[in-house]
Amino acid sequence: MRKNNREIKESLAQKRLKAFLDSTPGIVHNLSNPLTIISTYSQLMQMQEPDNTNITKMVEQSKLIENILNNIVYISQNILKEKPQQININTFLKNEIEYFRANPLFKHKVITTLDLTDKIPVVVNSYFHLSTLLFTIIQLTLYFFQSSEEKRIYISTKKKTNSVVISITVSVDDITNIINENEYKPLIEAFNDALIISQEVDISTKINRKNTGTEFVIEIPDKT
Amino acid sequence: MRKNNREIKESLAQKRLKAFLDSTPGIVHNLSNPLTIISTYSQLMQMQEPDNTNITKMVEQSKLIENILNNIVYISQNILKEKPQQININTFLKNEIEYFRANPLFKHKVITTLDLTDKIPVVVNSYFHLSTLLFTIIQLTLYFFQSSEEKRIYISTKKKTNSVVISITVSVDDITNIINENEYKPLIEAFNDALIISQEVDISTKINRKNTGTEFVIEIPDKT
Repeated sequence: MRKNNREIKESLAQKRLKAFLDSTPGIVHNLSNPLTIISTYSQLMQMQEPDNTNITKMVEQSKLIENILNNIVYISQNILKEKPQQININTFLKNEIEYFRANPLFKHKVITTLDLTDKIPVVVNSYFHLSTLLFTIIQLTLYFFQSSEEKRIYISTKKKTNSVVISITVSVDDITNIINENEYKPLIEAFNDALIISQEVDISTKINRKNTGTEFVIEIPDKT
Repeated sequence: MRKNNREIKESLAQKRLKAFLDSTPGIVHNLSNPLTIISTYSQLMQMQEPDNTNITKMVEQSKLIENILNNIVYISQNILKEKPQQININTFLKNEIEYFRANPLFKHKVITTLDLTDKIPVVVNSYFHLSTLLFTIIQLTLYFFQSSEEKRIYISTKKKTNSVVISITVSVDDITNIINENEYKPLIEAFNDALIISQEVDISTKINRKNTGTEFVIEIPDKT
């Protein structure tokens, strides 16, 4: 079957997007070389002048850059991976939440609390399925946060007998039950799509109305 | 029509990829804040100690980081833009070639020469179409460079009466006329796809066999 121009363009655009994602580790590598020089020299100077606050700040800021770069490499290397892999849920959440800070609204206006238990096992699942579920929940939440006074996200983890549970409570009432709005529709559709596919990897999601907002409870089987 | 899980996953993966691309300026913004602090303090120190080579290196390296960050913002903001826009072909080529340096083979092994004329007009065209054409040519070239001794790309620009011409000569013979190979097939398909859609924006491409390799001649109409 011959493709038409629209289909060809979509397929090429997808290739470009995939190549852009795949180029991330290479770009970060190119950034790491000069960053290492800066970080090494500023640490050397810090040893010579431990009381110089400017030098101390430079050391701190180069570490901050390093953290952001590590985060985007982690995200770029995992985001599309469907093959079952070991996932440390706490590391997953810390990295995903850090990554959302690319969004100015999330970074500057949303108060996110991570309340993570250390004692949860590593799960084996699809990074793509799990992160897409989180992604669609946060996208939906950010849409409502544009027009809501309170912007709080509270995330906790706990262990159950055969599963690991992530609870995400966002300070929006009835988030999945709003009248049809153009902007909102694709977001709720993406969330519903994420729910549908998460069943194939045995991830289940419940939505609870709470007086503090809406709670998403994501349960991931603990099988190794 | 109900979508099946495979289609849902593809559509979600595409959303994730698009969101990743769109998050680039935000991430670069988050990197710019600490980088500005480093760059400011190192420049201040350079003024106090102009002969300190370590400080001079830090100033240089922070500029290098800044250039890479500007490049990925430029790429991320233009790569999918189909709407006709003013394109300075020299700026376009410099940025695209800089961006390919995310690829280790391109960065470390390929000798790229940019021979750009200053006197070419700004064209109005689709960034997506033009950059995708270049992208597929370079991808194809890099595939052959894996197994070729000589790895040279020579790019020049010139003005014709009603067009701007980009000439790309790569040191590979008969690049588009090789027997079927599994890895090669999707690359030549992508190149042919890029050729097909470039017709809708009046970009024409010729391939010439030269004794120095294969020349791709891309002609972009000069209409404003």
